[in-house]
Amino acid sequence: MEIRRLDEQRAFSEEKLRKLPLFETGRFFLDVYCLLPGQVQKPHAHESSDKVYLVIEGSCRFVVDEAVETHGPGTAILAPAGSVHGVENIGDAPARLLVWMSPPPGASVG
Amino acid sequence: MEIRRLDEQRAFSEEKLRKLPLFETGRFFLDVYCLLPGQVQKPHAHESSDKVYLVIEGSCRFVVDEAVETHGPGTAILAPAGSVHGVENIGDAPARLLVWMSPPPGASVG
Repeated sequence: MEIRRLDEQRAFSEEKLRKLPLFETGRFFLDVYCLLPGQVQKPHAHESSDKVYLVIEGSCRFVVDEAVETHGPGTAILAPAGSVHGVENIGDAPARLLVWMSPPPGASVG
Repeated sequence: MEIRRLDEQRAFSEEKLRKLPLFETGRFFLDVYCLLPGQVQKPHAHESSDKVYLVIEGSCRFVVDEAVETHGPGTAILAPAGSVHGVENIGDAPARLLVWMSPPPGASVG
């Protein structure tokens, strides 16, 4: 059985946000993003993939198209295909996000 | 911005496991499954969809093909397409699981 424990998925880089891969198939990926205070994923869009962020710890500011909102642990945010979306750790503490994307950008499933 | 708060996704039925939908697009769905002690999702398979369970609270026994394992909060379990998978709340307390499926069974994405 392929399992991952979230509490083991915690590693930061001073340089930039760090992405820890949990699972990836041709149909989706599941990562944990680890952001030190001030680190960002710049707003971008995926034409044909949906993304969900779920805050595990910390507090981040999310952008999805025109909307800008700050959310903490236990909140899930949908960034549908085509939306311009990004995230910034605006808190004083490290932040971790669970991130699903379906399908992975560039994936082709037979 | 479309958001969902996990702590608001908690509702049980004496009759059977309850599925609370968070998000659904043509590419994935994200639900919370709420299981009282003894409630089950019987082993089944999806030919072309991957599923991930993530335990939010409680303790459940998971089946993925030949493997049978019990997991608690913070553990994510992959049930890849074609695998026979199911779950049972074997604990004394209610259990909640975050459940990601990609794509939704029967979905067709243009």
